[in-house]
Amino acid sequence: MLIVMSPGASRAEIDAVLGRVRDLGFAPHEIPGAQRVAIGITGNDGPVDADRFADLRGVADVVRVSKPYKLVGREAKPDDTIVSVGGVAMGGGHTAIMAGPCAVESRDQLLAVARAVKAAGGHILRGGAFKPRTSPYAFQGLKEEGLRLLDEARRETGLPVITEVKDVETLPLVEKWSDILQIGARNMQNFSLLEAVGGTRKPVMLKRGLSATIAEMLMAAEYIMSRGNHQIILCERGIRTFETATRNTLDLGGVVVLRAMSHLPVVVDPSHGVGLWYAVGPLARAAVALGADGVMMEVHPDPAHALSDGPQSLRIDRFTSLMGELRRIADVVGRAWG
Amino acid sequence: MLIVMSPGASRAEIDAVLGRVRDLGFAPHEIPGAQRVAIGITGNDGPVDADRFADLRGVADVVRVSKPYKLVGREAKPDDTIVSVGGVAMGGGHTAIMAGPCAVESRDQLLAVARAVKAAGGHILRGGAFKPRTSPYAFQGLKEEGLRLLDEARRETGLPVITEVKDVETLPLVEKWSDILQIGARNMQNFSLLEAVGGTRKPVMLKRGLSATIAEMLMAAEYIMSRGNHQIILCERGIRTFETATRNTLDLGGVVVLRAMSHLPVVVDPSHGVGLWYAVGPLARAAVALGADGVMMEVHPDPAHALSDGPQSLRIDRFTSLMGELRRIADVVGRAWG
Amino acid sequence: MLIVMSPGASRAEIDAVLGRVRDLGFAPHEIPGAQRVAIGITGNDGPVDADRFADLRGVADVVRVSKPYKLVGREAKPDDTIVSVGGVAMGGGHTAIMAGPCAVESRDQLLAVARAVKAAGGHILRGGAFKPRTSPYAFQGLKEEGLRLLDEARRETGLPVITEVKDVETLPLVEKWSDILQIGARNMQNFSLLEAVGGTRKPVMLKRGLSATIAEMLMAAEYIMSRGNHQIILCERGIRTFETATRNTLDLGGVVVLRAMSHLPVVVDPSHGVGLWYAVGPLARAAVALGADGVMMEVHPDPAHALSDGPQSLRIDRFTSLMGELRRIADVVGRAWG
Amino acid sequence: MLIVMSPGASRAEIDAVLGRVRDLGFAPHEIPGAQRVAIGITGNDGPVDADRFADLRGVADVVRVSKPYKLVGREAKPDDTIVSVGGVAMGGGHTAIMAGPCAVESRDQLLAVARAVKAAGGHILRGGAFKPRTSPYAFQGLKEEGLRLLDEARRETGLPVITEVKDVETLPLVEKWSDILQIGARNMQNFSLLEAVGGTRKPVMLKRGLSATIAEMLMAAEYIMSRGNHQIILCERGIRTFETATRNTLDLGGVVVLRAMSHLPVVVDPSHGVGLWYAVGPLARAAVALGADGVMMEVHPDPAHALSDGPQSLRIDRFTSLMGELRRIADVVGRAWG
Repeated sequence: MLIVMSPGASRAEIDAVLGRVRDLGFAPHEIPGAQRVAIGITGNDGPVDADRFADLRGVADVVRVSKPYKLVGREAKPDDTIVSVGGVAMGGGHTAIMAGPCAVESRDQLLAVARAVKAAGGHILRGGAFKPRTSPYAFQGLKEEGLRLLDEARRETGLPVITEVKDVETLPLVEKWSDILQIGARNMQNFSLLEAVGGTRKPVMLKRGLSATIAEMLMAAEYIMSRGNHQIILCERGIRTFETATRNTLDLGGVVVLRAMSHLPVVVDPSHGVGLWYAVGPLARAAVALGADGVMMEVHPDPAHALSDGPQSLRIDRFTSLMGELRRIADVVGRAWG
Repeated sequence: MLIVMSPGASRAEIDAVLGRVRDLGFAPHEIPGAQRVAIGITGNDGPVDADRFADLRGVADVVRVSKPYKLVGREAKPDDTIVSVGGVAMGGGHTAIMAGPCAVESRDQLLAVARAVKAAGGHILRGGAFKPRTSPYAFQGLKEEGLRLLDEARRETGLPVITEVKDVETLPLVEKWSDILQIGARNMQNFSLLEAVGGTRKPVMLKRGLSATIAEMLMAAEYIMSRGNHQIILCERGIRTFETATRNTLDLGGVVVLRAMSHLPVVVDPSHGVGLWYAVGPLARAAVALGADGVMMEVHPDPAHALSDGPQSLRIDRFTSLMGELRRIADVVGRAWG
Repeated sequence: MLIVMSPGASRAEIDAVLGRVRDLGFAPHEIPGAQRVAIGITGNDGPVDADRFADLRGVADVVRVSKPYKLVGREAKPDDTIVSVGGVAMGGGHTAIMAGPCAVESRDQLLAVARAVKAAGGHILRGGAFKPRTSPYAFQGLKEEGLRLLDEARRETGLPVITEVKDVETLPLVEKWSDILQIGARNMQNFSLLEAVGGTRKPVMLKRGLSATIAEMLMAAEYIMSRGNHQIILCERGIRTFETATRNTLDLGGVVVLRAMSHLPVVVDPSHGVGLWYAVGPLARAAVALGADGVMMEVHPDPAHALSDGPQSLRIDRFTSLMGELRRIADVVGRAWG
Repeated sequence: MLIVMSPGASRAEIDAVLGRVRDLGFAPHEIPGAQRVAIGITGNDGPVDADRFADLRGVADVVRVSKPYKLVGREAKPDDTIVSVGGVAMGGGHTAIMAGPCAVESRDQLLAVARAVKAAGGHILRGGAFKPRTSPYAFQGLKEEGLRLLDEARRETGLPVITEVKDVETLPLVEKWSDILQIGARNMQNFSLLEAVGGTRKPVMLKRGLSATIAEMLMAAEYIMSRGNHQIILCERGIRTFETATRNTLDLGGVVVLRAMSHLPVVVDPSHGVGLWYAVGPLARAAVALGADGVMMEVHPDPAHALSDGPQSLRIDRFTSLMGELRRIADVVGRAWG
């Protein structure tokens, strides 16, 4: 159920509705919108009687939500959510570019990429400090040192930083240093971690699981939002299919569907989506052309010697040249840049 | 094996090489290129001794082909193949738009769409006359009458026509009326049909099978080319994956890989690729932005009453407005229009 | 719609119903059952008025068929169809073993395997004469000579023969020599071929397409049965998934579902299903244990030198030893042997 | 690298090798076997010089391990690992049956099932206390109360208990009450959780992820074993494919491959694998017939009113009758019962 408030509803009126929902034994979720506030109700089995709210001022409508995701769907909030961080916006017509190395490997490597991202007009710096790896014997990241290097790069370039949070144990550390918390594909249904980041007030970028349906991805976002964190970015990064010529199959059709189903911004990661550096540029262009709210790419000063994901990382010169193309395409499709 | 001729090799020199290959008991395949001719050799088990050609004039090089597809790969012909029909080009930097109804349903329906495609700047008219359908009880197309209507639409609008050929039995009929022969996804590995269209001299558009790998698609094209037909267009139309929110998963990453592996033009069919009309426009923009050599779309004057594929068909007004966007994106990425 | 006749309905009563259906402009399909005859009606849009048959004798019931497959489903015929050939039965509690080489390679090879299959208690000899191959340059089978060798092996051993029919052109030839017509996985939705084998009166074994759903497989069988051929065997041979450790993923759960949905016998081909000889025996045991109506296996006297599918072919000694296990498992689960 | 000790190597000789590995800066992993001990070496980039161990007594061989999983593969330990708990064995020719409700719902429900499992000859009681659910609003299990009920059922029936551990936070609680720690499919690559259970000395059952390859599943087991816990059971529970007629696609071919690649016991969960109660029995028979080391099934006294997974749960009477069949098939294929 969803209680839609009138455009001019006051704080007191909203609070009265929240209180009534609690009195009925349910959980209220306030959903701020550009025009009006809505209040999602969960914890109920079946419909809630709309008459229970008829006497409250400021209530415009009480509607049934048909989808299992109550808060992240367009039913609850028709207008786009805009996630803003350090002056950069994603959603609501804004497209931002996140770029950086797969893993933070050293101070020199990170700063070289950060400066290039800044110079090329990129908006957000990415870099992994805690790396979940298929093999227990592979490089697992610089961990806290990596976070400190990201902070240094942020201070020098002014770029906000996104890095992955791998588990609940290290969440306080990552939350301290990162501007956006990234949930990796293999953790998309790590529900304890979702609840934990839902309890923070940092924006969260949720990557699609390797075999997660769009419906499951929205339910994972619902876990986060149901804990009160509304700043969520969805990230398509390729799904697992029978095709082995590419690392994953980038589901750009799914991006269009996600944007139709949900008010949350949706960004595209072509680097993981295809796993081949020469395909990253064309797919980044495709993502901007279809109206994605952001693109995330891996850039490395020396891909041949990267400690992880070298084959899918762009050289700095190629990234710089690509950025010009992306900006021109954003203009054609009427998107603001960052 | 591949015999690369010198740029200025004469017809007689080429013929001498063809004869030598036949004398050795193998099959020669002449592959015309923009700069030079190459001659593929098949029928051999293992490498052919390059010395066998050392005494022939005009031979520049004899190279081993590492891929199982000998003729359709970039090894055999590094420069793009350009398929031209009725003044429209695909490949070599040219992007063309094919549009029309899923099935030809009536004279009025087809002509209405054909005129709209022409008016909007489309290049080729599509329309199914023989329709392979999952159910034996579903509408199977107007058959020969559909072909005649396509011919009428071509004569009125000047647009070349593409329609599907379903089996060897009806190939002569389709070959007579259609400018391009379309092989449907379910027939991608109907090897008898591939050999049959390989024996014609009409351009062939080969759609990717629902679960065909890129390597298998190239081998299917090889079946056609090994019979002497070099005018082949590859078409990505979505693959089958676990995701059910879209009809198929459009593999735009695969398009980039196909263009890297093969010299053949690659076009994208977002209508089948996603199955949702509202996603066709964004994905068509994406296809042009990444550098596809063409886009095929389903357009219908009244999608709600279409006999097939209504939910994925664009209304005429939406198609017309999309065409302007596509042309502007083509300009940004430096593609010629048709 | 389905008209269910009384158990004792006479030929004349059945014919009267068939005539009435035709008079109404629809197509009648007589479906013989162990207890009673049913008559499926197709060609109608929406339900047919049951009153139209109220005056006819011998009509027990007129029921709506809820599934898109009208004839092959359990609604049309609750009891198992038994396909019998040369004294061997599949379905209705009978499990038969089909074995032989992937391709007929030579007289010696085929006869060696045929004798071993016979000696081990196998029921039907398989062997490919027309081989659809991914590459146009791969061995395509001995063709007509292969069919003649199969005939010789049949005459010597008494085993009925199954071989693949690849296209409509060669159907008359295969129909002449083979006891069962096999439709390969890549042809499961070659609707022209399905219609053609539907017009013969030879039993047809339909292999599941690489990415065919169970519903699509039943619709493909419906194409055959709607042309009047009721002797159809369904064959699970593995589907294409993300897993590459096996050639395909053998869907034994799908076998259970197929048997619940349809009255047709369902057999399992573990050789193609997994592509690894050492897994064929365990999966054949699994197939018999779950109640499959047959198992098809590739056996070769010298797998290392097979012209196709060597890695998944069983050596004769291993096949012979496996047959004893299969028979004991069939006893445990109460299945008759062939 | 792997150091294979002589069959009669003493504790002191083994310790000397462990010390040498550490002195070289690598990590030694002692792998006990039925005949001999092996010592896996990790932490090295590239091969370790075998001469470094030439002077040590008791060293039989130093071999290179070709697979990325160093400890769980048959290279490291050719003979089967047998996991024993409460007198029940899995692996080494022993097949055990784990059964119980999806979720522990109440004392009555759990005890009814536990008694039935015991009476039917089952070996281990399953039941979920912490339930990871796709929706944040779905029943998440009785949590600690569920664990206490499992303990009561164990004390009454004598059956060892298996239940899922969902996160690192609740691991101490689950470890206290459960005989086997179950890692769910969605946590198969929750590397922090794998490391945590690797640090316990309770047996771990690792379920295959929905889209995990066999290689990835073995790497996940390697995470656990590299932390010193050798008591690992692998569980095939169905993978995600395009087929929607079943909840998942049970990959029994993958079970055969897993058993060939790894020395760990492999069990099959047909309940999740297919999601349809009527298919659970046939697939359980199939699993035993192919040689699985165990079968896990969901049993409920009243499936229609189960709080989770009702459609795939067996009624008690059906489970009891199935158990007799399974035992007879185990006899045929020469497996010991539990």
